[in-house]
Amino acid sequence: MTVVAVCRTCKPEGDVAAEPPGARLGRATVAAVERLAGPDSVVEVRAIACLSACGRSCAASVAAPGKFSYVVGGLVPEDAEDLARFALAHADAPDGIPPWRTRPEKIRKNTVARVPPPGAEHALVEDISVAVEDVQEGS
Amino acid sequence: MTVVAVCRTCKPEGDVAAEPPGARLGRATVAAVERLAGPDSVVEVRAIACLSACGRSCAASVAAPGKFSYVVGGLVPEDAEDLARFALAHADAPDGIPPWRTRPEKIRKNTVARVPPPGAEHALVEDISVAVEDVQEGS
Repeated sequence: MTVVAVCRTCKPEGDVAAEPPGARLGRATVAAVERLAGPDSVVEVRAIACLSACGRSCAASVAAPGKFSYVVGGLVPEDAEDLARFALAHADAPDGIPPWRTRPEKIRKNTVARVPPPGAEHALVEDISVAVEDVQEGS
Repeated sequence: MTVVAVCRTCKPEGDVAAEPPGARLGRATVAAVERLAGPDSVVEVRAIACLSACGRSCAASVAAPGKFSYVVGGLVPEDAEDLARFALAHADAPDGIPPWRTRPEKIRKNTVARVPPPGAEHALVEDISVAVEDVQEGS
């Protein structure tokens, strides 16, 4: 199950609407997932009060246990379908890294960061070998 | 177990050193964790080739299964001890949200985003109720 957490408090500077656009984005993403994948989808959309990405609002995270997770920013409510498509591609990808061609352009250009899954092995995550002098010098 | 993944390819624009500073930051963080918490710490430091946060290099993620994870940017190798302290505070926090006072200032000011744990309940993560017209209009 891939979980999309949409920041419901996200409000870009200068936005004067009574309701934060993040809240509208969240509802629109629920609707978009249902349109694209039906009511029993492998993607669940939830709301969160702040993703600590306020400088890149509106922001949303896309995550699943044991997979890479993503944070996407710069979203407006009209991007709900792109966000839903990206989340469905994340659910399809065994390691949570959707193939580049499956990512909507808006998502490609507004990816804030990805996080490797803790406790799961992945070719992209490597051990660090530290020489004894690094530990001694603390450099 | 909290896992810190330090981007080993991170190289701020204009940096001409042969070795990316992200690689040095990774080794220095291994050493800092060992200094602060001993060799059998609850924090593991690994390297990753890109966190998709290149605009905020050097970047590192701090994550544990079932907890909030964080991405921190704007780091230099000399920030290794702050990163290690933040990771130890993350390991101490049952939900992965370290108390504000425990976060080094460099980390506070350079948090890129946080990601809620998928599949785990948390007071900050809420259901979204969508009116029928939202689904019909796809707005």
